[in-house]
Amino acid sequence: MIRGSVGTVKTEQVTFKEPLILESGEVLPELTIAYETYGTLDRDRSNAILVCHALSGDAHAAGYHTGNDKPGWWDIAIGPGKAFDTDQYFIICSNVLGGCKGTTGPSSLNPVTNKPYGLSFPVITIGDMVHAQRRLVEHFNIQRLFAVIGGSMGGMQALKWSVLYPDLASRVVVIASTAYSTPQQIAFNEVARSAIKSDPDWNHGNYYESFPPVRGLSLARMIGHITYLSDESMHQKFGRGLQGKDELSYDFTTDFQVESYLHYQGDRFTQRFDANSYLYITKAIDYFDLTINNSLTEAFQSVKAKFLIVSVSSDWLYPPYLSQEIVTALSSASADVEYCEIKSHYGHDAFLLEEGQMNYLLGRFLSSLTIADVMKTQAPTLYEDVTIKEAAELMIAQSVNHLPVVDSEGALTGIVTSWDISRSVAREFTSLDEIMTRNVFYTSPDEPVDSAVKRMELNHISALPVVDDKRRVIGLITAEHLSRLIGRCR
Amino acid sequence: MIRGSVGTVKTEQVTFKEPLILESGEVLPELTIAYETYGTLDRDRSNAILVCHALSGDAHAAGYHTGNDKPGWWDIAIGPGKAFDTDQYFIICSNVLGGCKGTTGPSSLNPVTNKPYGLSFPVITIGDMVHAQRRLVEHFNIQRLFAVIGGSMGGMQALKWSVLYPDLASRVVVIASTAYSTPQQIAFNEVARSAIKSDPDWNHGNYYESFPPVRGLSLARMIGHITYLSDESMHQKFGRGLQGKDELSYDFTTDFQVESYLHYQGDRFTQRFDANSYLYITKAIDYFDLTINNSLTEAFQSVKAKFLIVSVSSDWLYPPYLSQEIVTALSSASADVEYCEIKSHYGHDAFLLEEGQMNYLLGRFLSSLTIADVMKTQAPTLYEDVTIKEAAELMIAQSVNHLPVVDSEGALTGIVTSWDISRSVAREFTSLDEIMTRNVFYTSPDEPVDSAVKRMELNHISALPVVDDKRRVIGLITAEHLSRLIGRCR
Repeated sequence: MIRGSVGTVKTEQVTFKEPLILESGEVLPELTIAYETYGTLDRDRSNAILVCHALSGDAHAAGYHTGNDKPGWWDIAIGPGKAFDTDQYFIICSNVLGGCKGTTGPSSLNPVTNKPYGLSFPVITIGDMVHAQRRLVEHFNIQRLFAVIGGSMGGMQALKWSVLYPDLASRVVVIASTAYSTPQQIAFNEVARSAIKSDPDWNHGNYYESFPPVRGLSLARMIGHITYLSDESMHQKFGRGLQGKDELSYDFTTDFQVESYLHYQGDRFTQRFDANSYLYITKAIDYFDLTINNSLTEAFQSVKAKFLIVSVSSDWLYPPYLSQEIVTALSSASADVEYCEIKSHYGHDAFLLEEGQMNYLLGRFLSSLTIADVMKTQAPTLYEDVTIKEAAELMIAQSVNHLPVVDSEGALTGIVTSWDISRSVAREFTSLDEIMTRNVFYTSPDEPVDSAVKRMELNHISALPVVDDKRRVIGLITAEHLSRLIGRCR
Repeated sequence: MIRGSVGTVKTEQVTFKEPLILESGEVLPELTIAYETYGTLDRDRSNAILVCHALSGDAHAAGYHTGNDKPGWWDIAIGPGKAFDTDQYFIICSNVLGGCKGTTGPSSLNPVTNKPYGLSFPVITIGDMVHAQRRLVEHFNIQRLFAVIGGSMGGMQALKWSVLYPDLASRVVVIASTAYSTPQQIAFNEVARSAIKSDPDWNHGNYYESFPPVRGLSLARMIGHITYLSDESMHQKFGRGLQGKDELSYDFTTDFQVESYLHYQGDRFTQRFDANSYLYITKAIDYFDLTINNSLTEAFQSVKAKFLIVSVSSDWLYPPYLSQEIVTALSSASADVEYCEIKSHYGHDAFLLEEGQMNYLLGRFLSSLTIADVMKTQAPTLYEDVTIKEAAELMIAQSVNHLPVVDSEGALTGIVTSWDISRSVAREFTSLDEIMTRNVFYTSPDEPVDSAVKRMELNHISALPVVDDKRRVIGLITAEHLSRLIGRCR
């Protein structure tokens, strides 16, 4: 499978005029969300994946903006044939609440004062970000997300989705993240915030009409950047190589490549990010703590999603033990959870860089479906005593090719297809009993889709009724529907 | 053994008027060194231990300054009955070159201009620090240090001593350190320097007559402080505890204890440390790289000391692998090296906190002596043909109780003691042959002192001649001398 690009994309915006009530109790009078989508929402609106970004990310997750040859931040995983296969799924990525790339945040105009919020913007939480995203999901009229996925702070949002809206996401993927911010993470964030606030240009957040606090923000980013890399990756990337010189300078100019790289990253960041957003988002991260009475298991009591938790071996900012704690708690809460530790020397940033491992892991998880994930639950059925004509009328009315036949208890007794109807016409059969297949293949909600597909192919059948443990028909899967969902990312 | 305190101490200063030539080629016109000493230098000047401090340390390593109830920075290990037993050893600790606690540094007056150096102070190296320390060691007329010991940057100095002056230190102890600064270490230092330089009050280093860059220096210290602790120790110390409040504040005041702690540490640091010194000392750390042509083994070709290398299991700033690289290289260079990884959750700071492990490890290493370490090399000997009177005269002239007897080749043939002389007087023996012990116990320079002491005790003898592999007498050890050196730290 050749992996492709989603091509040229554009960030869209939608504004919700209803106020958003925040966890702090404060109210945002209105909410604008910037987002991008890739792929096509299917008729059932059942193939949507919400991708959540990390601290410094934005809605531009894949493809290219016109005039810019740098792809979106997770382009390695989003596109035709990639883990988030745009031929199968409808991918949504939105800029978080509090951000500075199109979604309402401290740099936005306060509709009440018509001036930028600055520090009058209320302090937000990961939960508030999720509530904002939910509006966007409702905007698309999506009843249930196929998956919510994110790395780092994006993983916090995904976890929060599973707890706040257990019925709204079938799958949750959490990468290089945690269920609560640790004191070390808080410490790094507080130093970053202090760097911004120590810059006189910050001016208590009022700099939108003057000069922004670029020195402070650059420092904050430099600190962050160190924590995203591993000691080993820095060794490999820079060693003790000198920058543009053959000998130590014996002054306070930049001697080493690693210094030059950090300054470059810091300076570049100030061109694309708002210092106040950095304050608000890091605060939301610090506040994040899913535990209830110190118990993570208690927090996960009501989750319903299937989880994939991924950690990175060399991630020292969000070390694997934090992911393992999530896995342990989910298991204790009887949730369905898979865990994988990626072997990588990239450190925390591995989720953005380990293309092969990410695509394999995520692709496998998304396609490891059970019948319950993909069956049509509104499948019409026939009672045994109907006439062939009545069967044909139902078929046409419902635009279906397959009609399971049930007895008075709703239990499966056979199946009738449009081909059978045609056969009755050809052979002049008049009773349903003469055309229906009684020795019918069926499946259960728990069967992995892979195995059902194999049986269908082996027996040349194009639909399987789904029955419960009393053989009552509860749904149907068809080859046509499956072929759209399966077969990629293998 | 009860461990005691060295009591009240005072920092002394000594000024050397001879210029100090630096590795950069620059010259310091004169050099003042601030230092403290604990214990007593013995007559042979053979019991001196040089303790080297880390980035933010100073000469005040143990005991108390008048009016201050905070002991010196390594008080857990220095004092009567502690690893650096002041009843046995003479401990020297000096403030490093470039520092701000009494030794010449950027805040010192430039004797040429009579103004503070500021940024006109030359960039210095760990090697320069060692050269400065050597002047102090010469000042005490010490020919050979019993040991050079340090943790973190102190360990760099100890390693550099072993390479620059292989004959001047018998033992070298390097704790939680490295043979070269890694890119991650450099990165943290560069962010710290940038924080200082970004503070407008820094004013390119000219702030001694105005307001010092306390915001920048505080930020630098906060960054450093995070790196000195482990994730686990922060969990244990702070968890997600709130500071002076019961609920999240939903503003940008300090919410968590860890934030408050860092600010406190940062602010307090600005009261005792000079921002320019922070720049110079971190630069010296960054420049530190013992490798020659990428080989550490080559760097250690000429070392002669016995090494103890100690790492800390939870130290992520100077991880154990960096210590293991030193051990591997020393072993390849056929040096005598012991390695130990301390099990601790304290992170890098463990060497300042793990009182029990540090005292045990260091004490054991320091007292694992061989005869060569403790023997008197100037021991007078007798030829077999001297008279008893001549023997007695030599004994009195040299103030010794034991005289080894040698043949014309210098080989040991017996021993004569003052008690033997007394016996000749009592019994009226006239020939040396009648009183000397021919079946004499002796030892070799390589024998561990412990085992020699045991043989002496077992056989009720009070002195052992030391012989080389041709049985030639090269020294003497006596019970009296040994009892002073041994017996502590067990």
